[in-house]
Amino acid sequence: MTPLQIRPVSQEWLSEALEYHNTLTKPPGALGFLEALGCRLAAIQQTLRPRLGKGAVVVCAADHGVTLEGVSAYPSEVTAQMVLNFRAGGAAINQIARASGAEVVVVDVGVSGGEDADPAGAAGLLPLHSRKVRRGTGNIAIEPAMTLAEAELAVRAGLEAAREAIRGGATVLAAGDMGIGNTTAAAALTAALLGLPPEAVTGRGTGVDGARYVKKLEVVRTALSRFEAGRHASPAPLTYLAELGGLEIGAIAGVFLAGAEAGLPVVTDGFPVTAGALLACRIHPEVRGYLFAGHRSVEPGHARQLEALELRPVLELDLRLGEGTGAVLALPVLRAAAEVMAGMATFKGAGVADST
Amino acid sequence: MTPLQIRPVSQEWLSEALEYHNTLTKPPGALGFLEALGCRLAAIQQTLRPRLGKGAVVVCAADHGVTLEGVSAYPSEVTAQMVLNFRAGGAAINQIARASGAEVVVVDVGVSGGEDADPAGAAGLLPLHSRKVRRGTGNIAIEPAMTLAEAELAVRAGLEAAREAIRGGATVLAAGDMGIGNTTAAAALTAALLGLPPEAVTGRGTGVDGARYVKKLEVVRTALSRFEAGRHASPAPLTYLAELGGLEIGAIAGVFLAGAEAGLPVVTDGFPVTAGALLACRIHPEVRGYLFAGHRSVEPGHARQLEALELRPVLELDLRLGEGTGAVLALPVLRAAAEVMAGMATFKGAGVADST
Repeated sequence: MTPLQIRPVSQEWLSEALEYHNTLTKPPGALGFLEALGCRLAAIQQTLRPRLGKGAVVVCAADHGVTLEGVSAYPSEVTAQMVLNFRAGGAAINQIARASGAEVVVVDVGVSGGEDADPAGAAGLLPLHSRKVRRGTGNIAIEPAMTLAEAELAVRAGLEAAREAIRGGATVLAAGDMGIGNTTAAAALTAALLGLPPEAVTGRGTGVDGARYVKKLEVVRTALSRFEAGRHASPAPLTYLAELGGLEIGAIAGVFLAGAEAGLPVVTDGFPVTAGALLACRIHPEVRGYLFAGHRSVEPGHARQLEALELRPVLELDLRLGEGTGAVLALPVLRAAAEVMAGMATFKGAGVADST
Repeated sequence: MTPLQIRPVSQEWLSEALEYHNTLTKPPGALGFLEALGCRLAAIQQTLRPRLGKGAVVVCAADHGVTLEGVSAYPSEVTAQMVLNFRAGGAAINQIARASGAEVVVVDVGVSGGEDADPAGAAGLLPLHSRKVRRGTGNIAIEPAMTLAEAELAVRAGLEAAREAIRGGATVLAAGDMGIGNTTAAAALTAALLGLPPEAVTGRGTGVDGARYVKKLEVVRTALSRFEAGRHASPAPLTYLAELGGLEIGAIAGVFLAGAEAGLPVVTDGFPVTAGALLACRIHPEVRGYLFAGHRSVEPGHARQLEALELRPVLELDLRLGEGTGAVLALPVLRAAAEVMAGMATFKGAGVADST
């Protein structure tokens, strides 16, 4: 991949923002985590009066060959059906995005089916970024998810869709995922990237039961063994993606890269999206400075990812849906964190007595 | 007080809403706590497609005689100064309310000073509901906060300001507090209402240090002893308020009563506001069905109040500011919870396969 230019977030602006926050008409620190969020936004925007306008959530969809192993409660066809649901405005992410002032951008980076149900410019549907790299990944229990060239195309698909949203006026980006089977890929990828055992990162996904969970854990273990047997000496970030998948996780990494490249805050969602965030940070470590954790889900591996990224989640609502729902739910809190800095009076300006 | 008519929230609508949520295009329960919030809103509004429009936050301000004991890090004058700051749009609540689609309503129910700085209809200032019951409460370390008649006037001030906001189109109400010294009154009131020891409900407020904290705890203990020595056999709710204060906590109870009376969801903020919510529920137990907890603050007694009300907070951001900030920050999450139900497609409607 062509190397991206990502400016490190300014530590000087961060210090100045923290100092400025203490001049505002409230006891120092009384807005808790909201103050830290506001200061980070100020540093990213290089102003003491940050503002968040319209947002965009880039929902990346693809299928997973590993569903052949019976690791999900839903059939693969649901991925294409949900892509159509996103475009028709009927999914959870559509409602939450409308409520949160964000545009929904849908990217097909590798959905198996869906072409018939997918007429370009069909009446009343949101447009689709049609960037199918391949029809679903390989079955990672027995083979690589994709080639290195395909991995690069997947990242590029998300990068370019996000760049277009930024040209369209988005001032903050969230990423969302849709892909039946993708918590299996995300578990394998997270375990490999963070050096964690499969048990620490394999959860129930959309709701697999006891026997299917055991199968899922076995598949993650097998995929990791295959990856390790490949003896990749200090593997490149795209090697992890090519070996373990998925296509939409690669595209999500591209969304975060594009946001950071443009100097915009970027917001993670749940477990598969945060796997994309980990990958983006591995591709370019300066992405980390632009990342906000929208929420912490009930998926156990998600907490491990956030610990590794040293990100405190804005929300903890026991979500486990994906689509970017938890990221977009957090946008109004981020917007309020910015507004507080942009609009509050100082003790001096308002003639309010400070603490004794 | 004239008894209020408050309709119990319909358990039939709640059951129907929970059932309907499972027909929407997502794995059952995948939106976690957001689903419970949406179903409660549906039951309150008696529809499967709830909606939250514009909100209002009623910020109730008053002073506390107990500040003479040195229980706060800020001088009493700050209450009046902050009222002016709310009206000028310079406080945290103004920025957060704007970001969350809520109107700020300011009620002076007992600020000591402020009349000179308070010209009715002054250019560029938000209007003030001028309902001064008295100039601050009595010092609860040595005397009752107010008379029973004053307690009733305080509740009525909040009730009437909230009714006016509802006539103006508010579809959800939050309450906010401003009153230097009010975490001391809230601690005494909460301990008395819930039968808890002073240590369990007395915290650092806006940031009192070791010696001042010891003093604050001693004052709460003294106020409670005085109250208990009064040997009120099963005291009326307004007796608690009259003995322990404060005026703005009474007004806040009135805000919650008015919201429930109108069949609207009402949102608590931090420790003093939730003391008002406890009082409102004691005045009329059906208020509980309309209550949502906006956040959980760092004030230790707040968690005890929420446990007593059996309310899970929407946000946990380590806030300790008051003014209604945590309540109003939660409004977009409540709005999204409603929008999800109002707008999502069903599995059948969208042609999406359900789980196997």
